[in-house]
Amino acid sequence: SEIVVLPGDGIGPEVTRAAVATLQAVGRRYGHDFRFQTHLIGGAAIDATGEPLPAATLAACRQADAILLGAVGGPKWSDPSATVRPEQGLLALRQALGLYANLRPVRPHPVALGASPVKPHLLAGVDLLVVRELTGGLYFGEKQRHADRASDLCEYSVLEIERVLRRAFGFARARRGKLVSVDKANVLETSRLWRETATRIGREEYPDVALDHQLVDSMAMHLIARPRDFDVVVTENLFGDILTDEASLLAGSLGLLPSASLGDGRRGLYEPIHGSAPDIAGRGIANPFATMLSAALLLRHSLGLEEEALAVELAVAAALDSGALTADLAAPGQAVSTQAAADAVL
Amino acid sequence: SEIVVLPGDGIGPEVTRAAVATLQAVGRRYGHDFRFQTHLIGGAAIDATGEPLPAATLAACRQADAILLGAVGGPKWSDPSATVRPEQGLLALRQALGLYANLRPVRPHPVALGASPVKPHLLAGVDLLVVRELTGGLYFGEKQRHADRASDLCEYSVLEIERVLRRAFGFARARRGKLVSVDKANVLETSRLWRETATRIGREEYPDVALDHQLVDSMAMHLIARPRDFDVVVTENLFGDILTDEASLLAGSLGLLPSASLGDGRRGLYEPIHGSAPDIAGRGIANPFATMLSAALLLRHSLGLEEEALAVELAVAAALDSGALTADLAAPGQAVSTQAAADAVL
Ligand SMILES: CC(C)[C@H](C(=O)O)[C@@H](O)C(=O)O
Ligand SMILES: CC(C)[C@H](C(=O)O)[C@@H](O)C(=O)O
Repeated sequence: SEIVVLPGDGIGPEVTRAAVATLQAVGRRYGHDFRFQTHLIGGAAIDATGEPLPAATLAACRQADAILLGAVGGPKWSDPSATVRPEQGLLALRQALGLYANLRPVRPHPVALGASPVKPHLLAGVDLLVVRELTGGLYFGEKQRHADRASDLCEYSVLEIERVLRRAFGFARARRGKLVSVDKANVLETSRLWRETATRIGREEYPDVALDHQLVDSMAMHLIARPRDFDVVVTENLFGDILTDEASLLAGSLGLLPSASLGDGRRGLYEPIHGSAPDIAGRGIANPFATMLSAALLLRHSLGLEEEALAVELAVAAALDSGALTADLAAPGQAVSTQAAADAVL
Repeated sequence: SEIVVLPGDGIGPEVTRAAVATLQAVGRRYGHDFRFQTHLIGGAAIDATGEPLPAATLAACRQADAILLGAVGGPKWSDPSATVRPEQGLLALRQALGLYANLRPVRPHPVALGASPVKPHLLAGVDLLVVRELTGGLYFGEKQRHADRASDLCEYSVLEIERVLRRAFGFARARRGKLVSVDKANVLETSRLWRETATRIGREEYPDVALDHQLVDSMAMHLIARPRDFDVVVTENLFGDILTDEASLLAGSLGLLPSASLGDGRRGLYEPIHGSAPDIAGRGIANPFATMLSAALLLRHSLGLEEEALAVELAVAAALDSGALTADLAAPGQAVSTQAAADAVL
């Protein structure tokens, strides 16, 4: 299989290195031939080529079976007057490949009981999957900027809503049969269309899945107050961005949460949900597990290697059990390096 | 002083009754003459007049010194095909009166240590004020609906951003001198304008206030992971809606959080941040404290009665201390009624 690696910025190179080593170990153990090609994206690509998503990168991604990404962005490229920004590379890639369904599973490891700000008795048994729409909404609507005002358009077509809902309903059916759709239907027209569409698809195509609707403001509470009640949660792009970072509180660290971005085919983009963390970049202390777990999702969703995916997930859990905790999770003075954490998994 | 009371829907009438009784008690104790007029809004207004904000209600509000509101909305008026919705009444009122700055203070009472899903050691010393922009953004931009798609426009002018930022900077200066401005400047044009404007106003007019910027997704984490680090938080309408419901987790119950909506004059609109809670409406078990605390904010911000406001806040704290806990806060079987909770304050 052809895997394109996009290290990106900040801690991106460090964490993707650990994830590539994970895939190589899987390849050796299970006898698969994974071929890796590294390409530029984000700030690193701007520095080298002037563009956040060079044509060569996009072309390689189109040929690949799967793409593994670190993170993009950093203060170096964040000047408000900048016309090219690292994030544009990531957004353009998601859109160009039609990766409209972003999966963000949250299943706290016992290490979360200590590391999470949430009370431990609420965390036991939490196992939720957020499906975030990834190629529409405010992110991709027309933007305007004038001297005295600015605007962003939030737009959704029925087709865009339907396809991501079907993915979410499908996952719910394969899991515990419960789907919560999150919107702001008491205020937004796009949310009313979202809610109607969810209700219709649920009734016509997934009558066996229990569908519930929540307003995004309430959901921001319920997600933390009663996380065990949720199975699959589906929502639009920006709400999903906010709610999944919030959901990381349940796992104890953003450094543990992987994601998969899928379209209609098998090709997918896999990345940790954390950012480029410029403050700790290059110091060898970043948590590599979110990216290693993203590699597990890559094995599962793009390569169909379920056993291999599980092996990686179990190895990460065992490494956490053994106390291989980076600075985001360890007690003061007890942290291990990125390399040591990765080695514990390998 | 003239106070317009808008009970609204669901538990609105029950909780505003308790808040009016609070104001009457303050009036008797401190010798003020508060006059109350009750008007229709929301679903109740739709049922009686066909409109969520009848002209008579708006006219009375324009004459009043302050407005006390319960809540609007409920399943009765939530049919997706409905063309008139209760929420429109509230949104139209906020806009018609130019109430662009919504203050949502969060200072957990010790009862939160038990009731909050957040670990107790994180809550001690939390004292934050969220200033939410209330009359712009996606809430009020042009909406379109077609058979196959829908859209909502998010628009902000520099003037709209400046005036709410100045309020937030002003509060920060009077408190602990720290302001966090929340946006999504790595994606949205309106957020980039917001961030630039905050930076400029901070540098030119409030150099003594420490200004920090956070992305809304990170903020959804930090708000719960390190709530003590925040003093004043300012953000646009929808982000503020989400983050303040989330912040209610710190207080242990949405039923404890008041709000004040202010414009350029002294007139303000005061309401609990919770909704109409149709599931418990009419059962006499709703928590009246958020609305009673909103009455305290009314005394402070519209009537300039700081001592009286503090007296109400202390009385609510004492009632909580004494164990006057409604069902949202009490241990099973220990809950008191709305009336009993209110009486404990009075
Ligand atoms: C980097 C940024 C554009 C991105 C997003 O908002 O989608 C990130 O926050 C994420 O969640 O993947
Ligand atoms: C009822 C609804 C329109 C309102 C809002 O979103 O502003 C409410 O959630 C609030 O926070 O006051």
